[in-house]
Amino acid sequence: MKRISFIGSGNVSTHLAIALSKVGYTIHQIYSPTYKHALSLATKVGAQVVNSCEELDEDIDICIVSVPDHSIENVVELIQGKNFLCVHTSGSVSMDVFKNRILKYGVFYPLQTFSKAREMDLYNVPVCIESNTSEDKLMLQEMAQAIHTKVYQLDSEQRKEIHLAAVFACNFTNHMFSIAHRLLDSKDIPFEIIKPLIQETADKIRDHRPVDVQTGPAIRNDIQTIHKHMNILNQNNPDLSLLYKLLSDSIINFNKEK
Amino acid sequence: MKRISFIGSGNVSTHLAIALSKVGYTIHQIYSPTYKHALSLATKVGAQVVNSCEELDEDIDICIVSVPDHSIENVVELIQGKNFLCVHTSGSVSMDVFKNRILKYGVFYPLQTFSKAREMDLYNVPVCIESNTSEDKLMLQEMAQAIHTKVYQLDSEQRKEIHLAAVFACNFTNHMFSIAHRLLDSKDIPFEIIKPLIQETADKIRDHRPVDVQTGPAIRNDIQTIHKHMNILNQNNPDLSLLYKLLSDSIINFNKEK
Repeated sequence: MKRISFIGSGNVSTHLAIALSKVGYTIHQIYSPTYKHALSLATKVGAQVVNSCEELDEDIDICIVSVPDHSIENVVELIQGKNFLCVHTSGSVSMDVFKNRILKYGVFYPLQTFSKAREMDLYNVPVCIESNTSEDKLMLQEMAQAIHTKVYQLDSEQRKEIHLAAVFACNFTNHMFSIAHRLLDSKDIPFEIIKPLIQETADKIRDHRPVDVQTGPAIRNDIQTIHKHMNILNQNNPDLSLLYKLLSDSIINFNKEK
Repeated sequence: MKRISFIGSGNVSTHLAIALSKVGYTIHQIYSPTYKHALSLATKVGAQVVNSCEELDEDIDICIVSVPDHSIENVVELIQGKNFLCVHTSGSVSMDVFKNRILKYGVFYPLQTFSKAREMDLYNVPVCIESNTSEDKLMLQEMAQAIHTKVYQLDSEQRKEIHLAAVFACNFTNHMFSIAHRLLDSKDIPFEIIKPLIQETADKIRDHRPVDVQTGPAIRNDIQTIHKHMNILNQNNPDLSLLYKLLSDSIINFNKEK
């Protein structure tokens, strides 16, 4: 079976290593600048811990580099010249970060939000793959399918757009929930009350284009309610009042261009 | 069994009338300025259509006024002096809109997003109730429980805050999905790819406070990625670039105050 090593032992590495190990891949070595984290993951998947990138064996099939975006270039420098297939897992970093330093390279980007606080089943998580050779693309495709994920072959430009879209659909969406939580909390209303609404909001777009199921004061052009809401926000959360205005204007603009 | 009449035959009236009729409530009369809509709903629930508010019989238990917020006051004028219990279904209009015109009044506000495009099961939908008498509050509570909803007794101030929170948690959240849709579409990437991420984002806050599971460039203070994203947006969607900046700043501020 294929042998895989990891550089990085954060959320993405952990989820991938465990999933791949379960379907029969051998997790060979793990390197992380934080030895403790590498050891914790290595123990879970029966891998060796190494103390530096130089110590990584070359007789493996794939080396997965899953580190913060700004560290990828440093890592590539440390492993340059190695002759394994090397992929990073970032949404926003071009595949070309490997060019001229590594012979066989690519990207394996799982489109999901990984939190330490929460177990994650990779089943149904889409993966965007890219490689500089069609042979390696095939190997990445097999690896993705082995852990039951949907595979999309996309270039770096498309992947960057997905990453940006994901910031809106996930990170900014979660912030909307944080704002709702804060507003309710300020009046001693349990957050529970709004959870069915959040669930339905996410469920609605399974079968509908989001612009087609937009509801609320902005889409109805209900200026009276918009002003009421901005007045409430101005009292205790003036920053949120500006945000409310901008979001409402944006909904109105999207509706015009629909 | 209790008899209920409706003023208004939009999404909320339709969902409530059908649900109440299923559990044995008699839907007596329906008035809507759009006769066709009133007739369509009346046919579904075996009710009479009336041509004006004056024709509404007084020997009913509850009259549910479910019309656009800005029309509630007009409706109250038309029915003033009637001696049934009268409730509106709005999140943002105070209960006092009935004061001095109707003797027994209240609010029955289901906290959910209703789209014509989508069937809705009221099961699990929270309802906020309020009334000027404790006897009528009890009747509203019974009615809510009969259609399996969770009941919250909240005053008008609290309800306004919930409505505002719901705009963030639902309307603005859906707009985040619309933006993601537009970005993906511009690069011929199917919206499907991002649906599991959206689902997980909503699922995550079932057991966690949203501020505790915030992910993305802003919370990591990843200025490099934030700038990359704003550059992409500036090329084709400058309005969204400003929105991206404001949302990122807001995430950073929330994190400081956590």
